[in-house]
Amino acid sequence: MMVKEVSIIGLGLIGTSLARGVKKCGFTSRVIGLDMNADHSRMALEAGYIDEVVDMERACKASIVVVAAPVDVSGEIVREALDKSGEETIVIDVCSTKKNIVDMVSSHPSHSRFVPTHPMAGTENSGPMASLDDLFYGHTVIVLPYPDADVEKVKVIETMYETLGAEIVKMTPAAHDESVAYVSHISHISSYALALTVLNKERSQENIMHLAGGGFASTARLAKSSPDMWVPIFTENREAIIDVLDEYIENVILFKHAIKSANADVVRTLISQANRVRGVLEEKEKKSKNKR
Amino acid sequence: MMVKEVSIIGLGLIGTSLARGVKKCGFTSRVIGLDMNADHSRMALEAGYIDEVVDMERACKASIVVVAAPVDVSGEIVREALDKSGEETIVIDVCSTKKNIVDMVSSHPSHSRFVPTHPMAGTENSGPMASLDDLFYGHTVIVLPYPDADVEKVKVIETMYETLGAEIVKMTPAAHDESVAYVSHISHISSYALALTVLNKERSQENIMHLAGGGFASTARLAKSSPDMWVPIFTENREAIIDVLDEYIENVILFKHAIKSANADVVRTLISQANRVRGVLEEKEKKSKNKR
Repeated sequence: MMVKEVSIIGLGLIGTSLARGVKKCGFTSRVIGLDMNADHSRMALEAGYIDEVVDMERACKASIVVVAAPVDVSGEIVREALDKSGEETIVIDVCSTKKNIVDMVSSHPSHSRFVPTHPMAGTENSGPMASLDDLFYGHTVIVLPYPDADVEKVKVIETMYETLGAEIVKMTPAAHDESVAYVSHISHISSYALALTVLNKERSQENIMHLAGGGFASTARLAKSSPDMWVPIFTENREAIIDVLDEYIENVILFKHAIKSANADVVRTLISQANRVRGVLEEKEKKSKNKR
Repeated sequence: MMVKEVSIIGLGLIGTSLARGVKKCGFTSRVIGLDMNADHSRMALEAGYIDEVVDMERACKASIVVVAAPVDVSGEIVREALDKSGEETIVIDVCSTKKNIVDMVSSHPSHSRFVPTHPMAGTENSGPMASLDDLFYGHTVIVLPYPDADVEKVKVIETMYETLGAEIVKMTPAAHDESVAYVSHISHISSYALALTVLNKERSQENIMHLAGGGFASTARLAKSSPDMWVPIFTENREAIIDVLDEYIENVILFKHAIKSANADVVRTLISQANRVRGVLEEKEKKSKNKR
């Protein structure tokens, strides 16, 4: 047992998966939690994913307090958790954007007990019942400690994620926010736009979705992702996202022009360049499999 | 046993999967084939996916001749197969675009023996070793018979695909080409453009792909698809594709403007509209599972 008790504030997909994971792998023997949505708390408790539903005061008595709330409210909750917890308690967040929260908490006198993290894992589903006890296995977790962070506490959090099978990468908040715009946020926008395009068409041609094969399902999967999570992310990280979106639109337009002018050589070159993604994805997959 | 022998011209993913499927499910006891690429023929034979490598003359003696070549050469091969085969032989193609091939073969005196089909199944991989004996299970196959087609022969082909677990949908070539631009071709272009955007960035930020989670892998999966297959498809279906691409770009720009102006309400509305894809995809999935 690494720590006595972990508390989870926000029992969504990530929070509840973490609750289940840390218990399953023996990192702690007791997980408590709360959620603004009473149904989520009740479901997580009834499913045995947490041991007790508690209030904020009690949650802050745990060894580790995990703030797993939407990005627009997590900063405030982290500050409150630092206020209400003792010197031994570690507070972490799991937000998908980091610049704002890291800035916001940096002025708190106890910020050295706060370890900002971003587990690069998730699914298109949300809520405690969508949680998975091995969600983090084989995935990357970005850890972004303050220069004056409590080194021992950072180590405990890294060990927690490593126990769950994740790989730790250290980054600065600015580099993080730009990178995730590329490898995550833009995927969601392209998927939402794809779904909108086909759904709009479906109004005039009823059975078009009937024809959708695995390719469409794969690219449109992320379009199921909830606005509660993604509206705040797009808002917080809008500068980086707009830059990447511009590059993305340019690439789509390159394809459009090449196809329109029936310039097979250019289309072939563009596709061949894009094909390089195979090597990168397969290397990543292999690494993750070897680990498991 | 429904037919004595099936021949496959073009031993790629689709052709070889069909070869394996019709034999496994007992639709025929003998499958012969050929490919322009001698390695493909050899691999398919050595793996036991076909019984014999033959020449074009011999292939045309089979009960059913499946032309599973790239879309830009399939029309010519179908015409040649009709020339070289007898009155009892059925010739089919599996092209992803249909207007051109249907037009091209319509002037052939034996076109009533040609049944144009498009199995809406595939993966991002290609070649005989990427084949799957259940590739068509639970998928839709579009069948586009000529008004004066030989009804009995069309029925045999429908039975073949149904035996493989597919569902038959009838369409006109024009409706087909427009629909697949929406549910398949555009997915590939958005995926290629996404891969290009991230790979371009990787030049300046080496480890960006290291951060890619399941979301990126899912949307970028199709970007592995080969130019040999997709350049001809984009060329043949370019009118429909350009129209859909324009709508798609408009939707991406809607997102961009809403995010740029931090208009959370508009972003939320767009995402909620896109979320409707969940219902459609899940209904489709359920249907396919029930069948299995």
